[in-house]
Amino acid sequence: MQDNALHSQPHDTVIKGARVVTSGTVTTCEIGIVSGRIVTLGTGLCGHEVIDATGLIAMPGGIDGHVHISQPSGPGVEMADDFASATRSAACGGNTTVMPFCLATEGQTLREAVADYMAKAEGQCLTDVSFHLIVTKADPVTLGQDLPALIAEGMTSFKVFMTYQGMRLTDAEILQVMDVAREQGALTLVHAENEDAIEFLRDKAERAGQTTPVNHARTRPVPVEREATHRATTLAEVAGVPVMIVHVSNGAALEEIQRAKTRGVRVLAETCPQYITLTADDLDRAGFEGAKWVCSPPPRDTAEQAAIWTGLTSGAFDVFSSDHCPFRFDDSHGKDVPGARKSFRNIPNGIPGVETRLPILFSEGVTKGRISLQTFAALTATNNARIYGLEHKGSIAVGMDADIVLWDPSKTRTITQDILHHGSDYTPWEGFEVTGWPVRTILRGQTVMQDGEPVGQPTGHHVARAKPEVAA
Amino acid sequence: MQDNALHSQPHDTVIKGARVVTSGTVTTCEIGIVSGRIVTLGTGLCGHEVIDATGLIAMPGGIDGHVHISQPSGPGVEMADDFASATRSAACGGNTTVMPFCLATEGQTLREAVADYMAKAEGQCLTDVSFHLIVTKADPVTLGQDLPALIAEGMTSFKVFMTYQGMRLTDAEILQVMDVAREQGALTLVHAENEDAIEFLRDKAERAGQTTPVNHARTRPVPVEREATHRATTLAEVAGVPVMIVHVSNGAALEEIQRAKTRGVRVLAETCPQYITLTADDLDRAGFEGAKWVCSPPPRDTAEQAAIWTGLTSGAFDVFSSDHCPFRFDDSHGKDVPGARKSFRNIPNGIPGVETRLPILFSEGVTKGRISLQTFAALTATNNARIYGLEHKGSIAVGMDADIVLWDPSKTRTITQDILHHGSDYTPWEGFEVTGWPVRTILRGQTVMQDGEPVGQPTGHHVARAKPEVAA
Amino acid sequence: MQDNALHSQPHDTVIKGARVVTSGTVTTCEIGIVSGRIVTLGTGLCGHEVIDATGLIAMPGGIDGHVHISQPSGPGVEMADDFASATRSAACGGNTTVMPFCLATEGQTLREAVADYMAKAEGQCLTDVSFHLIVTKADPVTLGQDLPALIAEGMTSFKVFMTYQGMRLTDAEILQVMDVAREQGALTLVHAENEDAIEFLRDKAERAGQTTPVNHARTRPVPVEREATHRATTLAEVAGVPVMIVHVSNGAALEEIQRAKTRGVRVLAETCPQYITLTADDLDRAGFEGAKWVCSPPPRDTAEQAAIWTGLTSGAFDVFSSDHCPFRFDDSHGKDVPGARKSFRNIPNGIPGVETRLPILFSEGVTKGRISLQTFAALTATNNARIYGLEHKGSIAVGMDADIVLWDPSKTRTITQDILHHGSDYTPWEGFEVTGWPVRTILRGQTVMQDGEPVGQPTGHHVARAKPEVAA
Amino acid sequence: MQDNALHSQPHDTVIKGARVVTSGTVTTCEIGIVSGRIVTLGTGLCGHEVIDATGLIAMPGGIDGHVHISQPSGPGVEMADDFASATRSAACGGNTTVMPFCLATEGQTLREAVADYMAKAEGQCLTDVSFHLIVTKADPVTLGQDLPALIAEGMTSFKVFMTYQGMRLTDAEILQVMDVAREQGALTLVHAENEDAIEFLRDKAERAGQTTPVNHARTRPVPVEREATHRATTLAEVAGVPVMIVHVSNGAALEEIQRAKTRGVRVLAETCPQYITLTADDLDRAGFEGAKWVCSPPPRDTAEQAAIWTGLTSGAFDVFSSDHCPFRFDDSHGKDVPGARKSFRNIPNGIPGVETRLPILFSEGVTKGRISLQTFAALTATNNARIYGLEHKGSIAVGMDADIVLWDPSKTRTITQDILHHGSDYTPWEGFEVTGWPVRTILRGQTVMQDGEPVGQPTGHHVARAKPEVAA
Repeated sequence: MQDNALHSQPHDTVIKGARVVTSGTVTTCEIGIVSGRIVTLGTGLCGHEVIDATGLIAMPGGIDGHVHISQPSGPGVEMADDFASATRSAACGGNTTVMPFCLATEGQTLREAVADYMAKAEGQCLTDVSFHLIVTKADPVTLGQDLPALIAEGMTSFKVFMTYQGMRLTDAEILQVMDVAREQGALTLVHAENEDAIEFLRDKAERAGQTTPVNHARTRPVPVEREATHRATTLAEVAGVPVMIVHVSNGAALEEIQRAKTRGVRVLAETCPQYITLTADDLDRAGFEGAKWVCSPPPRDTAEQAAIWTGLTSGAFDVFSSDHCPFRFDDSHGKDVPGARKSFRNIPNGIPGVETRLPILFSEGVTKGRISLQTFAALTATNNARIYGLEHKGSIAVGMDADIVLWDPSKTRTITQDILHHGSDYTPWEGFEVTGWPVRTILRGQTVMQDGEPVGQPTGHHVARAKPEVAA
Repeated sequence: MQDNALHSQPHDTVIKGARVVTSGTVTTCEIGIVSGRIVTLGTGLCGHEVIDATGLIAMPGGIDGHVHISQPSGPGVEMADDFASATRSAACGGNTTVMPFCLATEGQTLREAVADYMAKAEGQCLTDVSFHLIVTKADPVTLGQDLPALIAEGMTSFKVFMTYQGMRLTDAEILQVMDVAREQGALTLVHAENEDAIEFLRDKAERAGQTTPVNHARTRPVPVEREATHRATTLAEVAGVPVMIVHVSNGAALEEIQRAKTRGVRVLAETCPQYITLTADDLDRAGFEGAKWVCSPPPRDTAEQAAIWTGLTSGAFDVFSSDHCPFRFDDSHGKDVPGARKSFRNIPNGIPGVETRLPILFSEGVTKGRISLQTFAALTATNNARIYGLEHKGSIAVGMDADIVLWDPSKTRTITQDILHHGSDYTPWEGFEVTGWPVRTILRGQTVMQDGEPVGQPTGHHVARAKPEVAA
Repeated sequence: MQDNALHSQPHDTVIKGARVVTSGTVTTCEIGIVSGRIVTLGTGLCGHEVIDATGLIAMPGGIDGHVHISQPSGPGVEMADDFASATRSAACGGNTTVMPFCLATEGQTLREAVADYMAKAEGQCLTDVSFHLIVTKADPVTLGQDLPALIAEGMTSFKVFMTYQGMRLTDAEILQVMDVAREQGALTLVHAENEDAIEFLRDKAERAGQTTPVNHARTRPVPVEREATHRATTLAEVAGVPVMIVHVSNGAALEEIQRAKTRGVRVLAETCPQYITLTADDLDRAGFEGAKWVCSPPPRDTAEQAAIWTGLTSGAFDVFSSDHCPFRFDDSHGKDVPGARKSFRNIPNGIPGVETRLPILFSEGVTKGRISLQTFAALTATNNARIYGLEHKGSIAVGMDADIVLWDPSKTRTITQDILHHGSDYTPWEGFEVTGWPVRTILRGQTVMQDGEPVGQPTGHHVARAKPEVAA
Repeated sequence: MQDNALHSQPHDTVIKGARVVTSGTVTTCEIGIVSGRIVTLGTGLCGHEVIDATGLIAMPGGIDGHVHISQPSGPGVEMADDFASATRSAACGGNTTVMPFCLATEGQTLREAVADYMAKAEGQCLTDVSFHLIVTKADPVTLGQDLPALIAEGMTSFKVFMTYQGMRLTDAEILQVMDVAREQGALTLVHAENEDAIEFLRDKAERAGQTTPVNHARTRPVPVEREATHRATTLAEVAGVPVMIVHVSNGAALEEIQRAKTRGVRVLAETCPQYITLTADDLDRAGFEGAKWVCSPPPRDTAEQAAIWTGLTSGAFDVFSSDHCPFRFDDSHGKDVPGARKSFRNIPNGIPGVETRLPILFSEGVTKGRISLQTFAALTATNNARIYGLEHKGSIAVGMDADIVLWDPSKTRTITQDILHHGSDYTPWEGFEVTGWPVRTILRGQTVMQDGEPVGQPTGHHVARAKPEVAA
């Protein structure tokens, strides 16, 4: 097993033959793994296990910075994924870490919610998980106790909502939360849509009898997101903190982010596959089928897709996540009040996507020549790790967790529900063809997906995080 | 010499104990070098030579993407550096590659100019060099023969000037040059200042008797650079090519770059130490001493410095170069016509800076907490290599040239002329204090600077480049 | 009395010899008045009364679109002007119409408040008055009954506040109010400052012991106004209505207004004397004297003054009003809780200015050559009339009310408290020198001010307005 | 004939019954005219001639600020209008003044050119005329003698071209011309398109065999106009002068104008009927017919039309002119070199429009509710007069020339070549239906058009102008 005299003793595992991609470079070398960590990059390495990756591309395992799992979703609606199915789906899609959100239910403290989620995840996960928090209350217990303590325990980022009744915070509350973020060195994520404006438009639409799914998109138009984005960046400016605007869907919101950066505000930005591949027309399919594409912000049009692509190629976005928020199509009916009119307002918001995120960006981005392999790695793993404080994740480098995904850049597949592993009963990308597919996912040295199917035991665990660099 | 059974055979050189920085990660590992290339990253490596870098930071050797060496500078004026002194100075400042410009003299073809520069550099260089071209003529020989041939030989980028009589191209000529860039996959760099507007203001100033050095800055105000930047990005848009705007000095020009990106134009941007540390007031010193700070565009004011910093921290800039263009203070007098009035217009444009670029950015950026080590590496080496096609440069990764600089992040030095190694008789940063200093520079495995002084033979050679990724 | 055979029969009054200014033209002609209306413009007119205005400028009487009179101002604080003193002051400052706001007190309906104000104004006014409403509640009575009825009765504009606890509306409420405006053809005015952000900063300042008047300005920084301006224009965009942003204080807010216009939103803009002549430094005077300059938004700095001037000269502003909101300096103490710390937060917000608005703009604008006489007339009278639906006001034209002010363009005066006629015990412009002063104010043909002093009986009455052109 | 005792002696002419519009007001009154001037506005006026204008709208006669008449247009091409036909057409379209450009032919001085034009116009004109100059040379005679003298004689504005070989000026030359404008108080107009970029694209198109008329539009895309607009405003900024950007065709150019205003530059803007009603598709008709729509800048698309409308309604434009530049369709063939390929590059640039300008804006603007009557009057007459220094034109006010056009707002007509009076053999608006039509044009008290046909003798003369207000 000795190839080269420089390295005679065996690693646990050696990956050979791949082009190895980091956010900075693409090189051909071998990756030597011991005890789940990358310990050597070189040539002629020997290992007990040797993975022949000739013709493949070794990338840092995908980090999906924005997923929802087992999250309370209103009366009578279950989220379609628990930790077992979500991380299985994630691993099959080339991910080694997912970052779900902890949302407290009515009456629960954030601390209790975290404990619940931890318990639900325990022993179930095929990838590592690392929780963001969701802050829906700005009460003394949350701000004074739970948040500081949970940040100290490594949950160093949290999201606030400017939309959704019952979850949204006022500007005053967001400022208070940001003030804690500033004091504790955590990062605030913002879902930026103006709830009041949405409700105004929604009520108008309903009064006018416009209740089909496409009205979800029509009542959340671009100005509603642009406004909230401007406001969120201003609140960050006032509070003196960095802010991450999640799931940016259009050029006008992106322009607000850029303007804030020019003012000196530290603004980070995320976008998602839905904003480069889907449009509001998808919500306008016959009957109630458009419900399958209901997410917030909604997909826009091809001009906005182009604006998002320009952002991805020009460096305006920091991360590319899925906003995986899986429901079953039947759920779209579940929340309807019996006897009442079926309305878009009762469709649970969210689409499944943790398994398709990476193939879609690889195919549309790398294969089609829009972005480089390094940019792909940066947007899907390296930046996520740096921004969120996952110190041992996101790069193929000595000392890092051996979280690696092997891509076959020439494999062409058609996305269909039956090849996916999530809990939803549909995929919004049914029939979407991609070239470039992850063929092996390795979590801390252990293969968890091979040839499209999950492998091995759920050894994923929760990862505590350092304080985000931008918030330090 | 065996530390760890995994790697029993010796490398030529092993660097141990350093924190190793790439544009993606900061890890602690050893770097194993064989035949001038990095072949292993790991731990417990053995080598014939072991460099103990404990407490130091190993960075990719600096690539200075913008230097002028031995360039014809008008009658009676010699540039202060030849290749020996410039690369000696560069190496002492932590660089392993410099990218000088080839400028044809009157009557010379570009091909002949390149041959001249190659000859001058031959055997003189302590760092590697890789030439950009300067295109000052859009004649058939240049566009139809020399440029395509030189690009094919690895000089895959060239600069055009929108200023300087005798060097500037018209818009029509720039478009023709960009068309060649598009066809050949090369990258166009633009010095963006509106010459006509400058001359208008300069003539006015002179007529008004305003001839001291500070009038250099006053007759090249921000609008003159902003206008040319907008125009350059539009020409790139019309020609369908990427463009690099060099030495951006202010926020308004940077805004034009950002706007062009939003329109979908591939615009890259460079800034320099002078625009974050100097101001136009420096040109306003007593007597003619302000001549020491005359460069184009001129340093602005503290508000514009802040705008440039915002650009550096928010990712608006791709590279940070020196625009090293060294003259002797006495040259400021040399060009004056005997008996004629001394005027700012006769001061040669340019300041020395190849040796101070990295310490200034390290100190002002990393030490002061404005940018991370990774961003420093990206701006000073990795991005330069990727953008300009230096395939084996700019990263500490397996397969790359072992171009490494070791930094002592806690070493404090005061910049003075007597510690520098360039050919100029002054430094614009006389008395400037920095914390963080390069203590060893390694070129393809060979130490070329140690403890502030040049070491060894001039083994630097010219590096042919691949086609820039953005231009492919 | 026959001057010219063309017009042999007498008018009630003829004004002769003046340069007559409208928003379109400056001509020299005579103005013939019968029964309070302008019936003839010509030459050789005869009249029972002839006013020799040789050397003077006849302007449409000033319309002050933004004044507060006898408005409830919190426990223990009386506004310094009732209708008698406010309109006396207005007339002496060259105005013939003022537009006060009707604010309902706690428990009062808007209809009741209007009745109250009407009663207070009855028989007291030396100028005409026309009420805007203030909407502080979005309850069914206000939106469904009072607003539509009051709009129908000619109160066709109303202001909403995004700041001030107890008065501010939520975005949802603003949208509901705008929806009524859309249905009824009324115009919504917005005081745009983000209350939550202000409170966040105010609480911080107070906790830090920063309680002097200047902290009023520091806790209402530009971003707070810019944000609310962007939001207000977006709400108007969503509701499909025009919107007037009142008292714009800085260039960033003005930029938001311009951007909204470019998006196709009908946005109107107002600024005030304080934003071209005062700065936050005025609030920073020794002791508590800075309280005399406390208004919202606060005066900024000279750079923002320049931005406002640019807006005035380039047509970015539609109207120039006073935001007269008069308190006595002693009131600044009145609201302090006995024994408690004196704080900027308890200073009533507002400064007196109805009498100084026109001289300040005339002097700083017309006399200093920044704006033309026509622009002055447009900003201070004609536009106000058109925008707010005062069909017979704002222009010197046949059929219009004979509301005319005669200016002596060469008269120089120093503004001091003792030459003014308002109820406040100070003026923020104490010592401010102006050139150009109104020497006679004529309301519907009757002189109400001559040579700086009020004349005659208070014959001003309330003027019902047509629906604003932009809202039709 | 005595209606009212106030005015017993007769005017030459009295217009009764009309709604009278100025840029500030719409009132109903009578207009009394003596010796070609408006001397009285009132009621009950008597006159020797009484024009019953009941049901009509009296507007200031149209001032067309941008027309080309009898202008040298290259070998073998005659402009389709001489002064007789152009002013006849203008009068029939509701105009009382047109502003043609004086262009010197090869070898002619500007002074000589003016003399030529004056001679050609003498005794031919049915409307008044007032010349702009065109500066195509920046030689000492032009700048040092002719321009100052001609400005002093009342030709206080001149246009420079950034496009058209043989006419375009370099930036250096434009700056010199602007410097004269600054010294003499004249106004510079700029045709802003980047000639070099156009030629680059044109040569490409021709090499690719793309020679049909639509390629005229494709080789003058929006960026080419946007760039030149940014540059023109920057040159004005550098020279310290106001500037008028003529015939703005799109939102991006308009944005540059707005940005320049925000920087404090005095920029005025003009647009034309072609940019709100035509598109590039018109140039794409079968065969060579698209040549009928060839003008520069070219019409764009409906999105840009909307942007221009937004500019018109929000006050971004100062004047609305025709850019009447009439050729015969046959001319499109005339310039073709015998035996050579027919190409868009040989089509003379320009379309006829002096007669249709006002009806198109009235119908599309006023009738369709986009702009008010006052805005119409401002854009088509009042602003033109103020900006260009036509002191006695552009308003219905005492002392002004009795230049009046009576509109029937309910008259619907279909524009066709056979109802027009210009010298072209086609109209680009063939078949365009309008509501609102000028039924009588009165020049200095004399009717020159009635019921669509020219009336009376050509008494129009040249009008010397005052220095433009913005340039003073």
